[in-house]
Amino acid sequence: MRTVTYGGAVSLDGFLAGVDGAIDWLHFSKDVQDVMTKFWRDVDTILMGRKTYDFAVSSGREASTGKKWGKDKPRNESALRTYVFSRTLQSIDEPGVELVKADAVEFVQGLKRRPGKGICLMCGGELAQSLLAAGLVDRIGLNIHPILLGSGIPTFRDPGHRVKLMMEECRPLEGGCVLVNYAVVHAEESHSG
Amino acid sequence: MRTVTYGGAVSLDGFLAGVDGAIDWLHFSKDVQDVMTKFWRDVDTILMGRKTYDFAVSSGREASTGKKWGKDKPRNESALRTYVFSRTLQSIDEPGVELVKADAVEFVQGLKRRPGKGICLMCGGELAQSLLAAGLVDRIGLNIHPILLGSGIPTFRDPGHRVKLMMEECRPLEGGCVLVNYAVVHAEESHSG
Repeated sequence: MRTVTYGGAVSLDGFLAGVDGAIDWLHFSKDVQDVMTKFWRDVDTILMGRKTYDFAVSSGREASTGKKWGKDKPRNESALRTYVFSRTLQSIDEPGVELVKADAVEFVQGLKRRPGKGICLMCGGELAQSLLAAGLVDRIGLNIHPILLGSGIPTFRDPGHRVKLMMEECRPLEGGCVLVNYAVVHAEESHSG
Repeated sequence: MRTVTYGGAVSLDGFLAGVDGAIDWLHFSKDVQDVMTKFWRDVDTILMGRKTYDFAVSSGREASTGKKWGKDKPRNESALRTYVFSRTLQSIDEPGVELVKADAVEFVQGLKRRPGKGICLMCGGELAQSLLAAGLVDRIGLNIHPILLGSGIPTFRDPGHRVKLMMEECRPLEGGCVLVNYAVVHAEESHSG
């Protein structure tokens, strides 16, 4: 089964971006580049909410990718497939990008059963919330920045139940950042464990 | 000048406690005990909001201290002075505990100028919010637990402006927890730096 990874750069108080999507507080470094190069090797699919897609379009695709996953874009970008979830958009005319009007949970369930590499969930907290609630997120990776933003786009919204995690990695990155990687403990594992 | 430290055990989604103050998700360990023993050595004053004090009283003082700072209470507890900030409480009849009806910011400004050891801010996010906003918090220490609670008592509320931090420590603790310690970069340092 393919794994879905959620995360990105966050403030210590849990925001993916400040008010109006502000990302001027992000610290890029060789460390981040190395982490992201490694991450992209195992990914062939990106999931986005409509707001994230709008942000990507308005700031240029490259800027968007740079925001969340470091400046080091995947080399095999042409092989990347992006799905944008929206009930309001009519169409998307961009190669490699597909509009999904169907239910995100059902769609991602199907996607995970199909063969392929890792799936990257690149969004504000709303799409992540429904996929976390449905037990479809398998990994969470955060680059915690040394700042309190106070307000902005929250990384996590209430999935309606607790989600247990298993910490797999924790180490400092350049610029006072902290990399943490977790595996999500799915309910069935939790029960059998 | 005495330093004010804020923090405690938190979920990855930033809650100090779950709904109704739930703390059943806390993981105590030898690691936590060691961290807290070291921490309490340099502290002689605790600041609490009224809600935290209520929680402390309702669950027993020891339980409250256990919640936030590990089971290893300070040995010199008799020398500890606790200030509870409340405009609604009429009086507190407990040795070593003083009710403060004055403005928290002014009171803490005065407290920091007086001689003494470190000051521990033990509260939900509300008192911390006003003291962070006023630039009176000097250190933040979190023990990030491997869980998403979804809802509860948030660690950070909007202080109205960004707060820059300097990461000083980051390391795994037993049970998949992550210890992170930060110094707050106060505005004047930020400008002169």
